[in-house]
Amino acid sequence: MVGEEQAVLDHGFVRLDAVLADDLSVVNSARVSLAKRSDWEYSVGGNHRELSKADKGLVKFLMTKRHGTPFEHNAFRFHVKAPLFVFREWQRHRIASYNEMSGRYVQFDNPDFYVPDEFRQRVEGSKPGAYAYETWKGNNKQAASLFARHNQDSLDLYEWAINNGMATEHARIVLPVSLYSEMYWTTNARSMMNFLSLRNEQQAMAEIRAYAEVVESIFAFYMPVTAEAFRANGRMAP
Amino acid sequence: MVGEEQAVLDHGFVRLDAVLADDLSVVNSARVSLAKRSDWEYSVGGNHRELSKADKGLVKFLMTKRHGTPFEHNAFRFHVKAPLFVFREWQRHRIASYNEMSGRYVQFDNPDFYVPDEFRQRVEGSKPGAYAYETWKGNNKQAASLFARHNQDSLDLYEWAINNGMATEHARIVLPVSLYSEMYWTTNARSMMNFLSLRNEQQAMAEIRAYAEVVESIFAFYMPVTAEAFRANGRMAP
Amino acid sequence: MVGEEQAVLDHGFVRLDAVLADDLSVVNSARVSLAKRSDWEYSVGGNHRELSKADKGLVKFLMTKRHGTPFEHNAFRFHVKAPLFVFREWQRHRIASYNEMSGRYVQFDNPDFYVPDEFRQRVEGSKPGAYAYETWKGNNKQAASLFARHNQDSLDLYEWAINNGMATEHARIVLPVSLYSEMYWTTNARSMMNFLSLRNEQQAMAEIRAYAEVVESIFAFYMPVTAEAFRANGRMAP
Amino acid sequence: MVGEEQAVLDHGFVRLDAVLADDLSVVNSARVSLAKRSDWEYSVGGNHRELSKADKGLVKFLMTKRHGTPFEHNAFRFHVKAPLFVFREWQRHRIASYNEMSGRYVQFDNPDFYVPDEFRQRVEGSKPGAYAYETWKGNNKQAASLFARHNQDSLDLYEWAINNGMATEHARIVLPVSLYSEMYWTTNARSMMNFLSLRNEQQAMAEIRAYAEVVESIFAFYMPVTAEAFRANGRMAP
Repeated sequence: MVGEEQAVLDHGFVRLDAVLADDLSVVNSARVSLAKRSDWEYSVGGNHRELSKADKGLVKFLMTKRHGTPFEHNAFRFHVKAPLFVFREWQRHRIASYNEMSGRYVQFDNPDFYVPDEFRQRVEGSKPGAYAYETWKGNNKQAASLFARHNQDSLDLYEWAINNGMATEHARIVLPVSLYSEMYWTTNARSMMNFLSLRNEQQAMAEIRAYAEVVESIFAFYMPVTAEAFRANGRMAP
Repeated sequence: MVGEEQAVLDHGFVRLDAVLADDLSVVNSARVSLAKRSDWEYSVGGNHRELSKADKGLVKFLMTKRHGTPFEHNAFRFHVKAPLFVFREWQRHRIASYNEMSGRYVQFDNPDFYVPDEFRQRVEGSKPGAYAYETWKGNNKQAASLFARHNQDSLDLYEWAINNGMATEHARIVLPVSLYSEMYWTTNARSMMNFLSLRNEQQAMAEIRAYAEVVESIFAFYMPVTAEAFRANGRMAP
Repeated sequence: MVGEEQAVLDHGFVRLDAVLADDLSVVNSARVSLAKRSDWEYSVGGNHRELSKADKGLVKFLMTKRHGTPFEHNAFRFHVKAPLFVFREWQRHRIASYNEMSGRYVQFDNPDFYVPDEFRQRVEGSKPGAYAYETWKGNNKQAASLFARHNQDSLDLYEWAINNGMATEHARIVLPVSLYSEMYWTTNARSMMNFLSLRNEQQAMAEIRAYAEVVESIFAFYMPVTAEAFRANGRMAP
Repeated sequence: MVGEEQAVLDHGFVRLDAVLADDLSVVNSARVSLAKRSDWEYSVGGNHRELSKADKGLVKFLMTKRHGTPFEHNAFRFHVKAPLFVFREWQRHRIASYNEMSGRYVQFDNPDFYVPDEFRQRVEGSKPGAYAYETWKGNNKQAASLFARHNQDSLDLYEWAINNGMATEHARIVLPVSLYSEMYWTTNARSMMNFLSLRNEQQAMAEIRAYAEVVESIFAFYMPVTAEAFRANGRMAP
């Protein structure tokens, strides 16, 4: 699964760049606290993808009782391409590492912009602060066409400025938040579960949710017992 | 100084919303480690804005020797209005608290956009990766006019979408990163010194530097001995 | 309440050293996101200790929906005296600032040691991993006497080493984890609620719980609406 | 190198449990910012342990200019056995993950205690706050013998309490901070360099420095170019 770009939205992707993660690390780091060393040796020698029934129970116990630290001894490094308005939500998650393409240093050469296939409109829910979304009743094709033309106009102005010698850090301020950018994102399962609980969730913005779904599938592939315990715990991070 | 908006750029500001900070807290928290309790009592009874010579020496010692934790027992809460491309750099500083206006929830009503008075162009420095900036040799008035018209076009398209019932979270993706937003930012002196060392600095982007200069003046007002020690230490955070 | 030592255990205390916290800061920082600025002005002019009904509802909404960041724009600075084995649990909470008395630098002069009035024994609960505690059925007076004598023996050996010129950092390694130490601890309400959810809780060690109870009473004094919402949320931090 | 226990002090060890780290990840995550994608492809296809000259220069540039984030996209997971007074310093480093053996849950069975071969005494340096250490001029054999007997007395009292049914969390409070414990510690290269700059350093306590030396050798094995740049930068973390 490492190395493969999984497409998200019209031009984005999630690519797992490298990973150091399995369910056993949760069990072993917790066992240091509990000092049940004999079981531990046994597990180390066993099949890493198939925990014993006792080990699975321990993972579930740790999740439910909010013993969060054993879920931190792992790392997932992702390469992500997403629009700026998605990255702005994403990078508010502080317990993670980020490096993103810089509009100060990079001169964009035919960059991508996000244009939805179908737009949304908001529907008031029964409770205050609770909204639902449905397909926009306006002319979706027209809107997509207007948005695309606007993106091109923005890019034309950017290029006019660049071609006239303006610094990239000034020229780029005309570009819309639909602009795609790329980042490296490294995080651990505990912080990732917090991300997933908030972003792969009904109230989350659909665009970031599309990314979070791919992230969750990768998480569940490498740490299936942890992912199952996360779901059984109402998707609350420990 | 609390409560006052200090203007930055064409439409932004920094406003100190609340503060719990003085140099004495650095001295006292360090004295817990060193257990020189007699001096400590003396200082507590003294004038908080005028540390003793020994106390000033301690602050300098802590800064130089990279004893960073005594500089964390304080809090500055700011209300800031700045363009999105400035906030994107700012919010990468993870040891701080942020709440920002949300383009998902807020329907922008005649928002502000940043247009520089004078544009910049980049000049290659003598070393690779080292750039300098000078005033753009192009037609600055023309560029400002084109940028302002583009901002208005972006806003017109946004309003067309809103007026036709599109969700704010979709309509806003056409807005450029020059859009002004607002945030609450709470941080402590140690994290702030790290911010200042990177953002109130020659290589920093001029726009974030304009904000960082105001932040530094507020920091220096409340913690003058610490700010002086920071400068004497080559502006390296401890 | 600031400045007052509240006694905990046989020789410990919690003292609020300084504070910048009220419920209004939660409301105002959240309102930046939601941009309901008119209400906000009103609240600022009002009584800080009595939020409007709408504001109270907002605090509850933020807690329930896990919008955690508005609870971070505040600071509580505590001075705490507690045994080492309590500090070892406490300082594992990483989103906070600590400065503690150092056994490397300080030469202990007649330090205090914790000796329980009454000891505990563990009773197996019905589920694995769930324990209850009850009063130890052994001779509590005898144990207290033996523990106290041991503390004195430890101190005698420490002082023998010190008096013979040994470095404090070596002499202190004979001292037991019942030794009292002191620290400055600065945290915000969100991190504090996480601390309280784990430490002012039935499964927590009774000794750290005694401290957490005092911390919670101080928290509830300064942020009563937040504290009430925390309890109504099953004591889960947002 | 993974899996091997490297002995430290009289009974401790550092064991690298798992690792996801190389110098190339520094280069690649930085290249996302700078968008020099062609070089990047080349490096990916090349020998991971031998960066190109340009790549080495980039690592050095990032270190010197304090671009710290590219050094975070990696993970080292260690299993460490050390005395409590060493762990108390170690665990103050907050940007890392810890799970430690718990004296509440574990009943110690013939545990180890640290007794120095040779004790130290402190010598005043020329400047205030600057100390040096030399071999203690007292009777080192006698001290080691007294310390060892004291450890045994502590353990005897612990076992008397345990044998009489006292809860482990109460019995253990008589044990000295020379007691060995075990932990899992997961960190990234940037946080590790901060740890090394403070703990593998002349002013650091010799016991934690002994551990930090082993950690640094492991770090330098997996990220040789980064380790070299760290040293060339005066051992300052970026």
